[in-house]
Amino acid sequence: MRLSIKIGGHVLYEADGLVLGRLRSYAVVLKKLYWMGHGLSVVVGGGPPARWFIEAARKLGCPEAVCDELGIQVSRLNATLLVSLLGEAAYPAVPLSYAEAKPALSSERIVICGGFQPGQSTVAAAAVMAELMRADLLVVATDVDGVYTADPKKHPEAKKIPRLSYRDLEDLMARGEAEAGTFKLFDLVAVKILERARIPTVVVDGRDPAVLYKVIEGQDVGSRIEP
Amino acid sequence: MRLSIKIGGHVLYEADGLVLGRLRSYAVVLKKLYWMGHGLSVVVGGGPPARWFIEAARKLGCPEAVCDELGIQVSRLNATLLVSLLGEAAYPAVPLSYAEAKPALSSERIVICGGFQPGQSTVAAAAVMAELMRADLLVVATDVDGVYTADPKKHPEAKKIPRLSYRDLEDLMARGEAEAGTFKLFDLVAVKILERARIPTVVVDGRDPAVLYKVIEGQDVGSRIEP
Amino acid sequence: MRLSIKIGGHVLYEADGLVLGRLRSYAVVLKKLYWMGHGLSVVVGGGPPARWFIEAARKLGCPEAVCDELGIQVSRLNATLLVSLLGEAAYPAVPLSYAEAKPALSSERIVICGGFQPGQSTVAAAAVMAELMRADLLVVATDVDGVYTADPKKHPEAKKIPRLSYRDLEDLMARGEAEAGTFKLFDLVAVKILERARIPTVVVDGRDPAVLYKVIEGQDVGSRIEP
Amino acid sequence: MRLSIKIGGHVLYEADGLVLGRLRSYAVVLKKLYWMGHGLSVVVGGGPPARWFIEAARKLGCPEAVCDELGIQVSRLNATLLVSLLGEAAYPAVPLSYAEAKPALSSERIVICGGFQPGQSTVAAAAVMAELMRADLLVVATDVDGVYTADPKKHPEAKKIPRLSYRDLEDLMARGEAEAGTFKLFDLVAVKILERARIPTVVVDGRDPAVLYKVIEGQDVGSRIEP
Amino acid sequence: MRLSIKIGGHVLYEADGLVLGRLRSYAVVLKKLYWMGHGLSVVVGGGPPARWFIEAARKLGCPEAVCDELGIQVSRLNATLLVSLLGEAAYPAVPLSYAEAKPALSSERIVICGGFQPGQSTVAAAAVMAELMRADLLVVATDVDGVYTADPKKHPEAKKIPRLSYRDLEDLMARGEAEAGTFKLFDLVAVKILERARIPTVVVDGRDPAVLYKVIEGQDVGSRIEP
Amino acid sequence: MRLSIKIGGHVLYEADGLVLGRLRSYAVVLKKLYWMGHGLSVVVGGGPPARWFIEAARKLGCPEAVCDELGIQVSRLNATLLVSLLGEAAYPAVPLSYAEAKPALSSERIVICGGFQPGQSTVAAAAVMAELMRADLLVVATDVDGVYTADPKKHPEAKKIPRLSYRDLEDLMARGEAEAGTFKLFDLVAVKILERARIPTVVVDGRDPAVLYKVIEGQDVGSRIEP
Repeated sequence: MRLSIKIGGHVLYEADGLVLGRLRSYAVVLKKLYWMGHGLSVVVGGGPPARWFIEAARKLGCPEAVCDELGIQVSRLNATLLVSLLGEAAYPAVPLSYAEAKPALSSERIVICGGFQPGQSTVAAAAVMAELMRADLLVVATDVDGVYTADPKKHPEAKKIPRLSYRDLEDLMARGEAEAGTFKLFDLVAVKILERARIPTVVVDGRDPAVLYKVIEGQDVGSRIEP
Repeated sequence: MRLSIKIGGHVLYEADGLVLGRLRSYAVVLKKLYWMGHGLSVVVGGGPPARWFIEAARKLGCPEAVCDELGIQVSRLNATLLVSLLGEAAYPAVPLSYAEAKPALSSERIVICGGFQPGQSTVAAAAVMAELMRADLLVVATDVDGVYTADPKKHPEAKKIPRLSYRDLEDLMARGEAEAGTFKLFDLVAVKILERARIPTVVVDGRDPAVLYKVIEGQDVGSRIEP
Repeated sequence: MRLSIKIGGHVLYEADGLVLGRLRSYAVVLKKLYWMGHGLSVVVGGGPPARWFIEAARKLGCPEAVCDELGIQVSRLNATLLVSLLGEAAYPAVPLSYAEAKPALSSERIVICGGFQPGQSTVAAAAVMAELMRADLLVVATDVDGVYTADPKKHPEAKKIPRLSYRDLEDLMARGEAEAGTFKLFDLVAVKILERARIPTVVVDGRDPAVLYKVIEGQDVGSRIEP
Repeated sequence: MRLSIKIGGHVLYEADGLVLGRLRSYAVVLKKLYWMGHGLSVVVGGGPPARWFIEAARKLGCPEAVCDELGIQVSRLNATLLVSLLGEAAYPAVPLSYAEAKPALSSERIVICGGFQPGQSTVAAAAVMAELMRADLLVVATDVDGVYTADPKKHPEAKKIPRLSYRDLEDLMARGEAEAGTFKLFDLVAVKILERARIPTVVVDGRDPAVLYKVIEGQDVGSRIEP
Repeated sequence: MRLSIKIGGHVLYEADGLVLGRLRSYAVVLKKLYWMGHGLSVVVGGGPPARWFIEAARKLGCPEAVCDELGIQVSRLNATLLVSLLGEAAYPAVPLSYAEAKPALSSERIVICGGFQPGQSTVAAAAVMAELMRADLLVVATDVDGVYTADPKKHPEAKKIPRLSYRDLEDLMARGEAEAGTFKLFDLVAVKILERARIPTVVVDGRDPAVLYKVIEGQDVGSRIEP
Repeated sequence: MRLSIKIGGHVLYEADGLVLGRLRSYAVVLKKLYWMGHGLSVVVGGGPPARWFIEAARKLGCPEAVCDELGIQVSRLNATLLVSLLGEAAYPAVPLSYAEAKPALSSERIVICGGFQPGQSTVAAAAVMAELMRADLLVVATDVDGVYTADPKKHPEAKKIPRLSYRDLEDLMARGEAEAGTFKLFDLVAVKILERARIPTVVVDGRDPAVLYKVIEGQDVGSRIEP
């Protein structure tokens, strides 16, 4: 199976910093899946240290494109750590562009990326990677276990939507419910890319890396978005 | 004044191919503005030859990311022509990434780009360029003379909206009126980038390159979108 | 067997555009040869769309180096399509220089290139590739089935020369018979490179991609030029 | 005057994070010196966030070369912030290698770098930059106001050495007084480079960026090391 | 005036090695011309050390493309020396490709190159540079003072041809008089490039760098080849 | 076993030039070890031709950073020759930076490098390569058969130290015995890198390439330096 995985930066961090054990578990799980023969690429987010640098940049009056760039650079720090933990299973460099990602993908190792360029979300990056690698599935590993009708942290009555279409997702997004749940994870570009490439997405709670096994086995976890 | 300009590929082409005179006029107008001291960067679209290659690719079953890439490569062909016509006034190479665009921008010449990467519209590219160069204005040169309430080619009763906010534009886009007029030009990413960077946009009929003079002089042309 | 193949751009196109079926056949034939264990690299020409852009550039007064560059960029568009059709059998990127071609060649996949730089014919590019990959043979796939004593399209009495030496070819070229047949395909640089590398060339009618099977089997097709 | 300046990462940070005011002051001072006509390049260190990532990497068992790389990447984050604050006065990109630094230096703007490669201290990087730009002086801005006979933080009786030779410095370093003061800042490679290039160094307390004015005016600040 | 200059490697060397004084004179002359406002680019050859490495490579059985590459690398060593002597007047890096040469040319400094790629003579490289920079003239500085009817070192009766056309040159070359004089300097590719770009060439004795002043002043030196 | 090998430039040359037979033997030995399954990377020095160019540069007054660069470029010439002799066993390009070395290392071929950047010895470069490839051992192939208490060429009574620690080596170096033996080979940076990475070093007489077999078999040759 060919998976493009987006690991949210906030999944790797908690209040007191990088959750080393979780990063290690991701390395273990990814290596196992790799040796089982699955094709894998991962886009890692920036998480709190990215936010921290971006806030400093904003206070200093830097333009948003610079903030994006700082976020991208931090996401690559996280990616560098993951590459190192994966050892031989990983392509040894973090690709800085799609042009660099293509030979990496063809190396038949796990390709670990951070963000690619200003004005693009890491989900959109993972969507393009999915397309380039002709993935069977995009996995979005975040800190909620699926797409909800509203933000479950604020609205305890919000309901998880176990299965929806990209069109449904666009509708949810278009309803302007910017406050609402995890479809905030998506930007329209990502949705359009996945829809046109006809690649389904699964949104899962990535705080337990073992969820990737369940995804591979086709278990019903999180929410599944279909083209 | 610092301008990021997006010239739609279809503005440079008509049924029987590249409109040489129009491309030449763009070179003349841009050079004049440059020698007057304005800071300029241009993102050129792909136009009909891009569409032609993309259609062939689709028929061959290539993934959409490859189609995007072909479109980008063709837009760079158009950009190469424009660079050549601008002579000393232009930065001599077409930047292939934002990393390459930054030193180009600092050369204080006109920077001519095509698209940058799969999954990103050329308007979004021009928006990021606007942010990187700290532009005063994004000019979208297309084949309609502004943002309309509906597609003026189909709905003769559609009205031009001379002035609107990015929020208005988002609403128009969200109303799902995908059929409607020139706000189709925009994707949400571009709108978000411009909004956060607080850079206004002017949408003009670019079939007459001299419209750029009017824009610089602050005349009321096309539609103006404000942050 | 190790083959460097030059596919003329005009082989892939006919009056009404790209011959999709032929491009598909090339992909099928190349993949088959690849899985049989042959080492393959291909330089694709630009064909009619290249000519079209170059003519526009000439009318606009662009220098010839720019025209060459446009031709190279279009040849890379064709190469991008072929890469996409070859899937896993191809190195996933189109090398832009010999420096990039070398790691590509060592990936043990089919390497697909367009032209490399201004002032160099695509045959000369394929000759250098032949040398770099230590090819057993250069195959020139064009729209005539060999080297003729004169241009067979104009001189029906012209005779195919089934076997000649590079020195013979140089003589034909030096006789100034610029009007004459397919040795027009060669520039002196290409001939010198092949001669010094002692790599024979076969000139074949590439409109039927299956001709490559015959070449591999050592059948007598087209004309063979020996060091 | 031509200055290569090394700003220690810890100069830009205090317990509660980046000292925004100090970074802003550096931008102001550097811009002023730039407009006065001085040639400037800066190597910024990583500081606490670098240490933080490196510690995480060590706990995860990453090799030291990876730790170095993380430190370099963080130093480039700091450099990116400084570039952004300097606006037009700065070369717009952070060079990633000496090859990239050379055209940057010739742009006649302030060049801001982070570290360059594993196994090289940022002082050594600033020393090579000094040599490449043919600097008159290397300025090491740190949190002690000069070279001391011992670590002044631990040995209040330690004395500042206002003037010494590179040979003296080497002796101090060779005496194995690894615990001792600010000559810890230097590695032998840096000393050798500066000595052979005959470029003097001034070690100053960089917590007040205005110290750079005093250095330029030739005032007696910190310690001066002569070839 | 805009000049592309080819300095033969053997012009810089004599039996006992690099002629330091001559290299220094070239630096002086080029700087003077630069400060007078002339636009200059130089392609330097490899000379004896190139030949030395190439011979070793041949004895080791390396393919000719590797020999070419060694020659190119040595020519870049010579170019690096010249860049260093030119100081601020030179673009600080030796471009490795035409893509790198273009921004270098637009820096308005003297651009110093070695060879570019296997299978291309340094005269052809200088011809493409001439085209890219829209030179008024290509100067070939060699160790004979013009184009002769035969090799003047072997045939004392050979006559210098003070003025000829590219077509004449091609005829001389085509007459197969491979043994003959300095038109051996040219390959057909170079001639074709210069002819199509309508850039004349002057072949001069470069052992006295001051000859460049005479060329600039339009004096009758060496041989002049006209389109 | 994973080996990082440093072959001193002077090992490959004798008075009358490159010792072709020795270079060929290195190719044979390395290929054998490679096919036996060992992981290998090699950093080659510049040797006499480097010294020759550097001396010319010094006489011309070039800064030391330029001299370093010339030395690096020459070391890459030697590396290019070795790559060519290794054929399929070698990664086909000489990496110019650690960023380029990482994908090369992951290609599972022998990686051949020259120096990387000014101010860094080739031993330090080989030490970083050792760390990047997680080598079991660094082999320094030089023209003395180990670390001596003093320079054995000058002090016939000097004794070989068959086994020492990095700390011992530092002490030897710190004793200022700059005149002394082969620990001159090391700079402190290299020692620190190897110490922190806990990679032992073996210093051997590299004039007989077969010594590498003995090293692999764990025979007692040269001197062994332990973390």
